[in-house]
Amino acid sequence: MSYVIAVNAGSSSLKWKLFEVPEEKEVASGIAERIGLDMGKIKLKKADGETVEKELPIPNHNEALTEILNSLIEEKIIPSLDAITAVGHRVVAGGESYKDSVVVDEEVLAEIERLSELAPLHNPAEAKVIRVFREVLPNVQNVAVFDTSFHQTMPVENYLYSLPMRYYEEYKARRYGAHGTSHKYVSQRAAELLGKPIEELKIITCHLGNGASITAVDHGKSVDTSMGFTPLAGLTMGTRSGDIDASLIPFIMKKEGITDVQEFIDILNNESGLLGLSGLSSDMRDLRDAARNGNEQAEVAIKIFKNRIIKYIGSYMAEMNGCDAIVFTGGIGENDRAVRKDVCASLTFFGVDLDEEKNDVRGKEGIISKENSKISVLLVPTEEELMIVRDVERLTK
Amino acid sequence: MSYVIAVNAGSSSLKWKLFEVPEEKEVASGIAERIGLDMGKIKLKKADGETVEKELPIPNHNEALTEILNSLIEEKIIPSLDAITAVGHRVVAGGESYKDSVVVDEEVLAEIERLSELAPLHNPAEAKVIRVFREVLPNVQNVAVFDTSFHQTMPVENYLYSLPMRYYEEYKARRYGAHGTSHKYVSQRAAELLGKPIEELKIITCHLGNGASITAVDHGKSVDTSMGFTPLAGLTMGTRSGDIDASLIPFIMKKEGITDVQEFIDILNNESGLLGLSGLSSDMRDLRDAARNGNEQAEVAIKIFKNRIIKYIGSYMAEMNGCDAIVFTGGIGENDRAVRKDVCASLTFFGVDLDEEKNDVRGKEGIISKENSKISVLLVPTEEELMIVRDVERLTK
Repeated sequence: MSYVIAVNAGSSSLKWKLFEVPEEKEVASGIAERIGLDMGKIKLKKADGETVEKELPIPNHNEALTEILNSLIEEKIIPSLDAITAVGHRVVAGGESYKDSVVVDEEVLAEIERLSELAPLHNPAEAKVIRVFREVLPNVQNVAVFDTSFHQTMPVENYLYSLPMRYYEEYKARRYGAHGTSHKYVSQRAAELLGKPIEELKIITCHLGNGASITAVDHGKSVDTSMGFTPLAGLTMGTRSGDIDASLIPFIMKKEGITDVQEFIDILNNESGLLGLSGLSSDMRDLRDAARNGNEQAEVAIKIFKNRIIKYIGSYMAEMNGCDAIVFTGGIGENDRAVRKDVCASLTFFGVDLDEEKNDVRGKEGIISKENSKISVLLVPTEEELMIVRDVERLTK
Repeated sequence: MSYVIAVNAGSSSLKWKLFEVPEEKEVASGIAERIGLDMGKIKLKKADGETVEKELPIPNHNEALTEILNSLIEEKIIPSLDAITAVGHRVVAGGESYKDSVVVDEEVLAEIERLSELAPLHNPAEAKVIRVFREVLPNVQNVAVFDTSFHQTMPVENYLYSLPMRYYEEYKARRYGAHGTSHKYVSQRAAELLGKPIEELKIITCHLGNGASITAVDHGKSVDTSMGFTPLAGLTMGTRSGDIDASLIPFIMKKEGITDVQEFIDILNNESGLLGLSGLSSDMRDLRDAARNGNEQAEVAIKIFKNRIIKYIGSYMAEMNGCDAIVFTGGIGENDRAVRKDVCASLTFFGVDLDEEKNDVRGKEGIISKENSKISVLLVPTEEELMIVRDVERLTK
């Protein structure tokens, strides 16, 4: 039997899922955390739900991977390392260089590192982890799957900002978007569920998690997305502000005595959004609890969260001059029925008719609008790792 | 006979229109330019179209006003200064203090000055000019008409940014919008032209000039608008960028060696938008000419300009969950039939059906959609000065 690993690496973590191929069957998953810190942790979850946890110092990603591979053999999940045929890596920024996933060689690694200025917290760690896999499993091909590739089909009027053109020409300052793997997967799955070729559909996909973005998928291609040059822009997120007036930056910096603009951008990324508005939590579930207990700031944060979703959906309907389906995914999109309900309630003018009974689910794939709804509404749990595995299979065969 | 002056003052200019009241008849208009510079200029245009121009040094606004008033008497437009019963002043920023226009006293003047941090280039000059009118015409009441007042009805989810709540509570960092007088006038006029009470209508007003903004007017009240904390945000404008990803700011500053964030905000205000994209001109007419001659950058700039309008209209349709009418006004909105046509062509899904013949006009008030169009489209030349005069009449009677 053959196996493919889908990897999502951070600077101090290594998250993975193991799939049997070509069956696309998930056989185990896990995470190595606190890599490089005093004491790390390895978690492994088998297909039957049994979990194995181990605390130990993990000095670097190389050790983390060795530990993970050993545990796969110890737990008899794979017979030997030879059974692993390929590895797929999520890479945040592919810039304009990668319109599709790619088999990694030295040149690709160098390019991923060069693109670090577009994702300084992600690309360097991801490149490093790919190098580790190449060392530890020298006979196995690695595939880079970029968060941005799916959005490389955006037309110029949607990826350019209204800035001096030089900033794009010289520095490639433009909209790249993110969550591409998720938007691609759920739009394709939505077409399957609707029984129609995606080439005939206009779909708006709402990936609503701690990070959140909405994409306009016209005939299977991303034509616009709410995240921008970085994931900061667009919707209100767990800790990210989404869209703001740039003039606020010098105004607030002056008031707060902040002199470094990057420091303020960090506040926009890490202390804003639902957390900043509520002063309480970045987690929608906490805000729901607080709002039920009469916390008005939590109530306002939820209202703003929904409002921005409604506005982006409307803007993409206009941009595509139509919409056949709206898809919800991501932690909030899959589990918060009230967000789906309230968003759809503001779209009845366009012919959205949500079926409240069908909407009364958590994480269950299906069509949740009424049969005669002019625009279909779907819930599709995202499967980013599965998409990574599919790209690995396609490119390494 | 009684007269009211509507004033639009800048730091080195004083623009005015004189109306006979209560007839609301414009009897003259003019501008004093280059105040405080070596040589200034006074222009006066009579109702019959005759113009009088004079070049002379205008050391300050006090001299400018004295010259203007003298010319009104010399040219026999008014019999004496006593005929002027009140003056209305456009003021850019009213913050949260003014939900309506207001008769100016010392307290109001102090507040307009205090609000200067919201409009550092405008409020100080406007306060100064109001003081000049109070000196030169001590028996005449002055009314401040704020660009922001009309938008003070926005609900909290639309005026708050997803920032730490403290920034709003302590510094009043929020969306204020602008062009309020214009959006109010054209929405009211649209309701009249449609023969329906504005309280029954959902209207989207597009003020498209060198500055440009779109407002959602629900039952006569502004519920959202595309300009933000300042006029920088929202649409692509003549020289303003409109919405961008805030992360672009440190990225480009570093690339360009800019160390002061305010310097970069100035670039966003003055060197971006249509000018920055085209590298040619901030004027749509120049871009049309260039595009006709095959200039691709001009073509792209026009595409982006239209795209942002389409997206804001869609977002406001969703936010209001409906739309009865779309109104075009402002220099481009009134005169560029191709912008109106192309924007409406992207809204046919919603039931917009533009009448190409009726649309084939410049600056002519009327309904330009087909009779059976589900959403009416109107062209309404804006009359900000007339609105100012109406507020003056209402508040000084």
